[in-house]
Amino acid sequence: MKNFKTLNWIGAVDGYLELIDQRKLPTEFVNINCRTVEQLYNAIKTLAVRGAPAIGVAAAFGVCLAAQEIKASKLADAVKYIEMQIDYLASSRPTAVNLFWALERMKKKLYEVAKIEDLQNCLLREAKKIYDEDVEMCLKIGINGEHFIPVNGGILTHCNAGALATAGIGTALAPIFEAQKNGKKFQVYADETRPLLQGARLTAWELMQAEIDVTLICDNMAGSLMRQGKINAVIVGADRIAANGDTANKIGTYSVSVLAKAHNIPFYVAAPSSTFDLKIQNGSEIPIEYRNADEVANFMDLMTAPNGVKVYNPAFDVTPAENITAIITEKGVIECPTKEKIQNLINP
Amino acid sequence: MKNFKTLNWIGAVDGYLELIDQRKLPTEFVNINCRTVEQLYNAIKTLAVRGAPAIGVAAAFGVCLAAQEIKASKLADAVKYIEMQIDYLASSRPTAVNLFWALERMKKKLYEVAKIEDLQNCLLREAKKIYDEDVEMCLKIGINGEHFIPVNGGILTHCNAGALATAGIGTALAPIFEAQKNGKKFQVYADETRPLLQGARLTAWELMQAEIDVTLICDNMAGSLMRQGKINAVIVGADRIAANGDTANKIGTYSVSVLAKAHNIPFYVAAPSSTFDLKIQNGSEIPIEYRNADEVANFMDLMTAPNGVKVYNPAFDVTPAENITAIITEKGVIECPTKEKIQNLINP
Repeated sequence: MKNFKTLNWIGAVDGYLELIDQRKLPTEFVNINCRTVEQLYNAIKTLAVRGAPAIGVAAAFGVCLAAQEIKASKLADAVKYIEMQIDYLASSRPTAVNLFWALERMKKKLYEVAKIEDLQNCLLREAKKIYDEDVEMCLKIGINGEHFIPVNGGILTHCNAGALATAGIGTALAPIFEAQKNGKKFQVYADETRPLLQGARLTAWELMQAEIDVTLICDNMAGSLMRQGKINAVIVGADRIAANGDTANKIGTYSVSVLAKAHNIPFYVAAPSSTFDLKIQNGSEIPIEYRNADEVANFMDLMTAPNGVKVYNPAFDVTPAENITAIITEKGVIECPTKEKIQNLINP
Repeated sequence: MKNFKTLNWIGAVDGYLELIDQRKLPTEFVNINCRTVEQLYNAIKTLAVRGAPAIGVAAAFGVCLAAQEIKASKLADAVKYIEMQIDYLASSRPTAVNLFWALERMKKKLYEVAKIEDLQNCLLREAKKIYDEDVEMCLKIGINGEHFIPVNGGILTHCNAGALATAGIGTALAPIFEAQKNGKKFQVYADETRPLLQGARLTAWELMQAEIDVTLICDNMAGSLMRQGKINAVIVGADRIAANGDTANKIGTYSVSVLAKAHNIPFYVAAPSSTFDLKIQNGSEIPIEYRNADEVANFMDLMTAPNGVKVYNPAFDVTPAENITAIITEKGVIECPTKEKIQNLINP
């Protein structure tokens, strides 16, 4: 199904992380190699690798790169160095919680190591485990969500929560790939997703690679399609889900959820359990990343707005739980999400 | 207030129409001169001149250019030639009704001419009258709509229904300019308006020229701003309004109207009486223009989506009357528009 590797650790403990440079898609399909923590930090920050689960997996391997850079000979000093590099990686992007989740897991493993000689092996094993679990998680989300894909229906997705956003086959796109495997016919509409066009550049590309019927639209066309009855379900990914089900995802997701509700169209969020942040009560506590005005006012090197125009450019918005029909996770489906249902499934 | 001429007839009956080339804004401010009907047709078709009222005025002057091309010596033959050129101009764009309205007015005048020698003068007088009325209409819409601009509030507009869309100061932007004249403080948010970015390129430019506080956003950010309470009113233009108040306007307007309704934000349409098409009962009868896939899948010469991707690219959508708080016209304001109220004001 997936005929490319979004991220790929090459070699043993002295290896490096190979990433598809997603900034170049769809015109170029090229890899970049991250051999230092700094290179990986920049790859996350500049969106060469993006998508909440993929960022988490990448950061885990980033800790392995940090372990290669250790100059200390005592374990305690090595641990201190890696803790510092973990903090550095954690500062690359603020909203997607999978980044912090993966780094926490790596940190826990760090504290289990008894001898400095075991450090690199132990961390690489954990990073690879996170990778493998991510692949598995995607498959399970696909199976758990497949029955929500309407036969002969139209499915709208926003941004890219596909194979490029994970180590596996994706989150929001996983049920779509699973439905295709099962021989279902359907049509996908991909919001282009301004300003960085992840829908146009990545989702449309992925679905065309998989020979799935996909139509690209501008974000502002979704409402009109819904009114015409051409959308039967919406499915998106998530960057962070609060204890009550409020969900941060790519800017524009909230608008789509309001439009879906107004047209009685089910709105699904597909995300692994690592996307839940049960420490925060609701969406108002999720930090939202604001990005550079140039992303909106310029296209590549072309100016698309007046010089010096004021721009508002949040990377994410929050969809309240009441707009979400169901959250599809690898552990099961939470219909009409509430704090209690989420607690029971994610952290029983 | 307006320190440029969107369109400008230069000279006498043997003159030509000068237009700001709106495809080049905001990076270049250049005029193009239309000396033939074909040049004018192409200027409308390729959006060098755009905006429902401006298209109407431009087309009226197009009939004057047609009158310069007459080779016949008999009045009946001349009339026949111009009728043909009117049909040609009418085929440039299908949705905005002001185009047909202006051409109908020119046609009526054509039939009043008694001698072939009077033809050019008579048509130019009528075109100039349409121009002057358009300027006047904008001012009246400004005055009629000014009280809807909330003091210290946030106003969202979509696409460009400003001075660049008319011979005068605009439709949707006219109440904003009037409010500024009256010393009101407020903040405008401009939807960039994909795919052709009329909001980013034209509205932001116009408002910055007028020193009005404007913030550019991507279309998909409006919902999030509304949820944060930053938008207190929405005001847009119109390309055609049916007898019942259903309104065709730039693609994305419908989505904004649904979002406004969901957040209890008033949604205003500002348009001259020439935008009403009382022959059609409701929005389903308004022909919608579909434009080339390249507008979405490419940016200038840059590919932004996979080669050969399927694209859906309607230029307009229809906002149902029930989503419209009021329609602001030069003749007065129609609150909660109904067929009866529209009939009473527009065609009493």
